[in-house]
Amino acid sequence: MKKILMITADGYDDSEVLYPYFRLIEQGFSVDVASFAKGPVNGKYHFVIQAGMSFEEVCPDKYDGLMIPGGKAPEKIRQNAAVLDAVRRFMERGLPVAAICHGQQILISAKVLCGRKCTCYPGIRDDLINAGGVYLDSEAVADGNLVTSRRPEDLPYFMREFVRMF
Amino acid sequence: MKKILMITADGYDDSEVLYPYFRLIEQGFSVDVASFAKGPVNGKYHFVIQAGMSFEEVCPDKYDGLMIPGGKAPEKIRQNAAVLDAVRRFMERGLPVAAICHGQQILISAKVLCGRKCTCYPGIRDDLINAGGVYLDSEAVADGNLVTSRRPEDLPYFMREFVRMF
Amino acid sequence: MKKILMITADGYDDSEVLYPYFRLIEQGFSVDVASFAKGPVNGKYHFVIQAGMSFEEVCPDKYDGLMIPGGKAPEKIRQNAAVLDAVRRFMERGLPVAAICHGQQILISAKVLCGRKCTCYPGIRDDLINAGGVYLDSEAVADGNLVTSRRPEDLPYFMREFVRMF
Amino acid sequence: MKKILMITADGYDDSEVLYPYFRLIEQGFSVDVASFAKGPVNGKYHFVIQAGMSFEEVCPDKYDGLMIPGGKAPEKIRQNAAVLDAVRRFMERGLPVAAICHGQQILISAKVLCGRKCTCYPGIRDDLINAGGVYLDSEAVADGNLVTSRRPEDLPYFMREFVRMF
Amino acid sequence: MKKILMITADGYDDSEVLYPYFRLIEQGFSVDVASFAKGPVNGKYHFVIQAGMSFEEVCPDKYDGLMIPGGKAPEKIRQNAAVLDAVRRFMERGLPVAAICHGQQILISAKVLCGRKCTCYPGIRDDLINAGGVYLDSEAVADGNLVTSRRPEDLPYFMREFVRMF
Amino acid sequence: MKKILMITADGYDDSEVLYPYFRLIEQGFSVDVASFAKGPVNGKYHFVIQAGMSFEEVCPDKYDGLMIPGGKAPEKIRQNAAVLDAVRRFMERGLPVAAICHGQQILISAKVLCGRKCTCYPGIRDDLINAGGVYLDSEAVADGNLVTSRRPEDLPYFMREFVRMF
Repeated sequence: MKKILMITADGYDDSEVLYPYFRLIEQGFSVDVASFAKGPVNGKYHFVIQAGMSFEEVCPDKYDGLMIPGGKAPEKIRQNAAVLDAVRRFMERGLPVAAICHGQQILISAKVLCGRKCTCYPGIRDDLINAGGVYLDSEAVADGNLVTSRRPEDLPYFMREFVRMF
Repeated sequence: MKKILMITADGYDDSEVLYPYFRLIEQGFSVDVASFAKGPVNGKYHFVIQAGMSFEEVCPDKYDGLMIPGGKAPEKIRQNAAVLDAVRRFMERGLPVAAICHGQQILISAKVLCGRKCTCYPGIRDDLINAGGVYLDSEAVADGNLVTSRRPEDLPYFMREFVRMF
Repeated sequence: MKKILMITADGYDDSEVLYPYFRLIEQGFSVDVASFAKGPVNGKYHFVIQAGMSFEEVCPDKYDGLMIPGGKAPEKIRQNAAVLDAVRRFMERGLPVAAICHGQQILISAKVLCGRKCTCYPGIRDDLINAGGVYLDSEAVADGNLVTSRRPEDLPYFMREFVRMF
Repeated sequence: MKKILMITADGYDDSEVLYPYFRLIEQGFSVDVASFAKGPVNGKYHFVIQAGMSFEEVCPDKYDGLMIPGGKAPEKIRQNAAVLDAVRRFMERGLPVAAICHGQQILISAKVLCGRKCTCYPGIRDDLINAGGVYLDSEAVADGNLVTSRRPEDLPYFMREFVRMF
Repeated sequence: MKKILMITADGYDDSEVLYPYFRLIEQGFSVDVASFAKGPVNGKYHFVIQAGMSFEEVCPDKYDGLMIPGGKAPEKIRQNAAVLDAVRRFMERGLPVAAICHGQQILISAKVLCGRKCTCYPGIRDDLINAGGVYLDSEAVADGNLVTSRRPEDLPYFMREFVRMF
Repeated sequence: MKKILMITADGYDDSEVLYPYFRLIEQGFSVDVASFAKGPVNGKYHFVIQAGMSFEEVCPDKYDGLMIPGGKAPEKIRQNAAVLDAVRRFMERGLPVAAICHGQQILISAKVLCGRKCTCYPGIRDDLINAGGVYLDSEAVADGNLVTSRRPEDLPYFMREFVRMF
């Protein structure tokens, strides 16, 4: 059974957590959620997900892939050193990494986008480019082990690419 | 390409519309949404979906399957004669029909549950039984062309069964 | 002094609790509120009422009448065995029993509607009929010791009938 | 049939409109609602009532009694000259006049409280006294044709006194 | 460094606390906030300010000026004897005292407005007049040590006058 | 009289618009607000300000200074070419330019931060650095004609610096 790590925090975009979370379970994968602390994590609107561990307790090498939803959470998460280390570890191992919407803010702070084809929410496009990313305006951009999308409406294409990588 | 009809209205459970909707698109199906009127339809929390037609404009024979999400919408929808006719038509043709949570209230009013194994939100269990349904407490119950589930947490199992039917 | 038992829970329709509650006090009756637990019980909007006891602590034989408001509460309450027992006890003793809107879901689960003339919120009309009730579309339906109404706008007629029974 | 005029506006306390409104209908009275304009008038929480006329269209002599609910509405209404004229007319004719909570702000501005025993929401007690009212801390104070109460919890006693005056 | 006392409570008008508070700090003054209890105090919308002491712990003689914002808070605060004593002490010493919108309700209850030129929110104008105030309809009214304004939009003129007094 | 241009849009941080706006008026300056369209512009919580013109109608050379509040608005505004041109024009002329919190996202997209000492909301610090800014963690950073701050709590220091520049 494939094991996926999901990185999020209060203020996430509800759709961008619930669709990947339920979809990976449907696929037969297991999903561990990490956040600033173990316990309930609230979306912008209504969804609540349980984090099974804090960012500091994450062992990246136990997982087969990384999922980074967007919303308001990434702006806080990108300031967490343990998360940035974990992201770099997934990228070094060449494992599937997915980020959508504002999730790419974490990839920018982890400095892993240089020269990579990717997309993001239009409001942070200039930040992605300043971080060395090669911006494309497309529903889902797959470049090696990296999948990125722009917004909730892209979720079907985002998950189709991500699931295909396993 | 398979064509699915989704029946919903204002007050639906957000997860129960967005997960099936995005999931069917990911699967390569097309999804038409019908409601009391053409235009935007609002979930209980934040999700907005566009209905392409009113219930009265639905041609059931153009579709390969029927999806009925829950929430507060089914209690209103079950009073609509065009919907009840459409549901019966799908059942007569033996096409895949899925209902989750309170969506089964529509199946009760369409009188199509007699002798069928099914499940539903616990709050309407007695109504399901009074309508002749054989209630099972399970994540997803498939009986012939009919798939039913209990609540949003069952969505991965619900959609796995529904997609399997095509 | 007549003693009335009111059965409700979080999510009740505010009007359907506050009007009967204040009205019975104005009449000189005392009203005991029971819910899933002793303590504050919140309506859908703003009203808060204090439950003096849990459902399990109710002694039906201490009361002269039963009041069941609607809203989202009855769908949860109808799953409580102590409530269903209490409802049946009031009906057996032929004491005044009143239910409005979705409150009748509790009467359905208590199996006390067979052959009784009654009304309810239109969204659960088919469930009332499947439970053996004789549905009438009227502001307030009095059949023996049973008074039922359809919605908040019926409250004046509902309470006029209920008070008349004492 | 007795005819009652109710004076209110957006921001009223829901309980203080809906309880008197339904109660007077239960009593067999008719109730006309006046506000700044004809049409829907919204409470602080959820209740909506239809105003049949604007304050300027009110003919005080057509009514047998006056009901003034509280909330945030009276602070705006007390600035309306037509309302103040109407209040004085009811008082001159000695007809039943009822005000609860902040509704007494309108009586203060109409200058009809001088020497009258009355009560009000504690937050405006000093204003009532400065206007010449004789403040009493009681559930319902009846002084001649005038009934006043302090807050929503007093509604049963408030309406018992008001109905008794007819 | 000038020391200002600010008197407020839950339900204050956000603008009327945050503008004076930040403005006095910008001016190089220190501001102590007092409320019913030490700890966070919430505005009507979003602003949160920390009260450093309860009303009972206030030593009026430690301060060079008094600031009274409006909103829903003054109606509760005016019932507190310690506040009324403190207000009278500031007035007796002739120190700068500022009140805006509903803040003047506290001045009314402290009985310090007799013969003073002042203004207030239009909804309490009659109460100000009944308390002996000489009402003027102006953005900011300065009369000796007293500055008053009508509403949030007057804040720039209100604070210009208040700062000028030191 | 000094003329200031304020650039904002729906979703701004209420404090970051209302404090600078009122403060500049108190100072005797006039403030013109520009947004995506002429008309009301809503903050995240409650504040509403009137935009007198659209971004496309702005004539930068009519103004003596530029004010850029934060919140959710800058992420949308930074995609507007007319705004970026206007920002560059103010910087070329060496006029006072102030940005707080997320307002610096607009400066990043206008490419005017290279080599400038500045600060910002911590969540976009890495983006500021990637854009060539020299990040300092300070209440208010003044570098030539440019003033920047981190968050609402910095407003008193932010405005003290900005007003000092005229």
